[in-house]
Amino acid sequence: MSLDKVLAHIDADLDNAIERLMHFLRIPSISTDPKFNGDCDRAADWLVADLASLGFDASKRPTPGHPMVIGHRQDAGPHVLFYGHYDVQPVDPLELWDKPPFEPALEDTPNGKVIRGRGAADDKGQLMTFVEACRAFIAVNGSLPARVSLFFEGEEESGSPSLVPFMQQNADELRADVALICDTGMFGHDTPAIVTMLRGLLREEIEITGPDKDLHSGMFGGLARNPVHVLAGIIADLHDDSGRVTIEDFYDGAPELPDEIHAQWRDLNFDHSAFLGAVGLSVPAGERNRTPLEMLWSRPTCEVNGIIGGYTGDGFKTVLPSKARAKISFRLVGQQDPDAIHRKFVEFVNASLPEDCSVKFLQSDGSPASQMQISHPAFQQAREALSAEWPKPAAYVGCGGSIPIAGYFKEILDMDALLIGFGRDDDQIHSPNEKYDLESFHKGIRSWARILAALN
Amino acid sequence: MSLDKVLAHIDADLDNAIERLMHFLRIPSISTDPKFNGDCDRAADWLVADLASLGFDASKRPTPGHPMVIGHRQDAGPHVLFYGHYDVQPVDPLELWDKPPFEPALEDTPNGKVIRGRGAADDKGQLMTFVEACRAFIAVNGSLPARVSLFFEGEEESGSPSLVPFMQQNADELRADVALICDTGMFGHDTPAIVTMLRGLLREEIEITGPDKDLHSGMFGGLARNPVHVLAGIIADLHDDSGRVTIEDFYDGAPELPDEIHAQWRDLNFDHSAFLGAVGLSVPAGERNRTPLEMLWSRPTCEVNGIIGGYTGDGFKTVLPSKARAKISFRLVGQQDPDAIHRKFVEFVNASLPEDCSVKFLQSDGSPASQMQISHPAFQQAREALSAEWPKPAAYVGCGGSIPIAGYFKEILDMDALLIGFGRDDDQIHSPNEKYDLESFHKGIRSWARILAALN
Repeated sequence: MSLDKVLAHIDADLDNAIERLMHFLRIPSISTDPKFNGDCDRAADWLVADLASLGFDASKRPTPGHPMVIGHRQDAGPHVLFYGHYDVQPVDPLELWDKPPFEPALEDTPNGKVIRGRGAADDKGQLMTFVEACRAFIAVNGSLPARVSLFFEGEEESGSPSLVPFMQQNADELRADVALICDTGMFGHDTPAIVTMLRGLLREEIEITGPDKDLHSGMFGGLARNPVHVLAGIIADLHDDSGRVTIEDFYDGAPELPDEIHAQWRDLNFDHSAFLGAVGLSVPAGERNRTPLEMLWSRPTCEVNGIIGGYTGDGFKTVLPSKARAKISFRLVGQQDPDAIHRKFVEFVNASLPEDCSVKFLQSDGSPASQMQISHPAFQQAREALSAEWPKPAAYVGCGGSIPIAGYFKEILDMDALLIGFGRDDDQIHSPNEKYDLESFHKGIRSWARILAALN
Repeated sequence: MSLDKVLAHIDADLDNAIERLMHFLRIPSISTDPKFNGDCDRAADWLVADLASLGFDASKRPTPGHPMVIGHRQDAGPHVLFYGHYDVQPVDPLELWDKPPFEPALEDTPNGKVIRGRGAADDKGQLMTFVEACRAFIAVNGSLPARVSLFFEGEEESGSPSLVPFMQQNADELRADVALICDTGMFGHDTPAIVTMLRGLLREEIEITGPDKDLHSGMFGGLARNPVHVLAGIIADLHDDSGRVTIEDFYDGAPELPDEIHAQWRDLNFDHSAFLGAVGLSVPAGERNRTPLEMLWSRPTCEVNGIIGGYTGDGFKTVLPSKARAKISFRLVGQQDPDAIHRKFVEFVNASLPEDCSVKFLQSDGSPASQMQISHPAFQQAREALSAEWPKPAAYVGCGGSIPIAGYFKEILDMDALLIGFGRDDDQIHSPNEKYDLESFHKGIRSWARILAALN
């Protein structure tokens, strides 16, 4: 079978693959700092040249910001669109790096060899796992087992301002059967993961006004309404004793986890004590009778992100404040509707308001959760391919945060996305001394080769 | 009866009394600004000279800050110590004054004549009501009907740093049968007031820590404890549905109002709608089944003075905060013990804390309420004297805030104090265009004359 030959080629060619990645990593393509505009352009050029050498119809496509890189080959098979980004995070504080961030090197560590340097994991190393898999197929077979399009962005670390317009303007060109995204991590050391649920987000900011000016708490305290008390009451009432959010109809559209996923997650043996212990906590704080992974991945939440009111400087000032303000966000799952929840939140707050207090809803924006259609055959095919490569079977996992690109593929191109990545928790992305395990890189390339062979 | 002659003399001498006050007001004795140190000294000298002219053994007494002015006469009768302050507030913003603040003038207004200028009401005009009453007695009788000591401070508007040490060092000289303090106001337009209850104050600042750093609310939200929720819960739980504070034993030592005071307060017909309406509120927010004046004067309270946690800048940042902080103060009444309540507050907070959160008690200080012994005969004598002068009977009232000097007289000199003043709500003390009604000044002088005659 030709896959074995391809995998053998990957193993044999690994040193060259590392060399190519090192070259790519030496380009300081920091997208957020205009000083590096030329380097971003150089990174795009480097990619175009490399793709062209693999027979891709590759081009650098201008945007108001950094260019996109697009490549197409017209091999037979299902059409897949692979996404990655060639820009990297800034490197400061530079003094915390043990080596210059753009002089990447292979390093021996107690946990094995790593590729050290800015962008090694996020996302140049991950991006190249897919390119190297393609290279191996072409070297061995002269073609790819699927019709592959590549889509590389250069603004992911600076807010992706050009991404949505570009996708809208080039929808027909970009649309494929399924999207592949390599910008996430493994679950633990040995378990590859496919992210199939991304929580949505509804953000609200409210300001409660009681008296029309700050009052003297001696002269008015006891008779005049304190808006901090009102706001604290609203926040306290947002959850019941079982940890459930009390806003009416909040859980409409929040699905129960399928038994199969439940079983998978149980098998992951998530160590919530270690997870919480790493941030100084120990007790799961979410809904009663939910597993920690449900709390993180598949259950909606309500969190106060910020609160302020009255005098907050040094010492004391015994004011009875006029105003109190909070930013409150909801993580959404399944089919929960941000607009409907916004309306119910407004009702909830208004119902908690004494008649002589007022509320302003200062900001509100929302986006629904992304739930991949895992019935799409690519999911099961990819899962089996990953399971063949790694010590433990691949898991469908959730992601508590949002990865906007996954939503855009769905929304703009009506494609499901397979979020598969080989990053590890200790990769220090966005921080000094970023690294990518050589195992992540090597087995990542092999994983994509297996997935490409499995898709049909 | 000689009081009638004294009152007649006051009426006849009013223009001269105004002239003297104007002279005093022209001295810009702003205590908080070192630029005016010489003027504070000049104001003290002016008082010493004026008191000496009335036969007082008067002297300017140095302190590390502005001098005190002390005067004694040795007439027969009960020994009273009168307190006032000769320093004034700063005048900025100067552009909001209709006339220069230190060029005082008599002005006609729709509500009658007023003396306009910085210090007219706070406290030079009030201080001089007593001095002028003494002057009239001496002019008519050659003596005072009581043994009067005078105690004038020059640092009241800048925190009184020298007051307590001076009182401690001169306790024997200052101690009298009763203290008279003229730095408060009337109750409404026609009702003179004697403040007999001043609420105490316990101030607490707490900081709740959940995770040991700010977290990403997507990655951790739902599983990790949010300290803002914990703090909001604590604040919400501090009051029950009836508005009572829920801290154990909080009301120990908080007395029920005597029936007589209840009746007096009922007769005051306090317009709480107007009081709250002036600050944009309408609904009494304190304990159920208490009158608005009880809420303000004779009931203890708990108010959050400030709260902060998480991201409070522009836009959104979906952090799950590490810390949340609040300043919380309690107004105390009767015999409530600040130390005992502090201990119970600490217990209350600790009991509300999830096991993986911690709390720091950052600041705590407390002072008990001052409750005058109105059984002291001077109170009833002063009350009757005031009632004879004004359209409506004098009332024993409470004061929601604290007036530290009253507590010091009790604590350091073991004296009860009669807080009697003739200020009105619209005097704009501490603000531009401060004024003192001519009626306040004139009838204030007459009131003190009546009180001096009545004390025995």
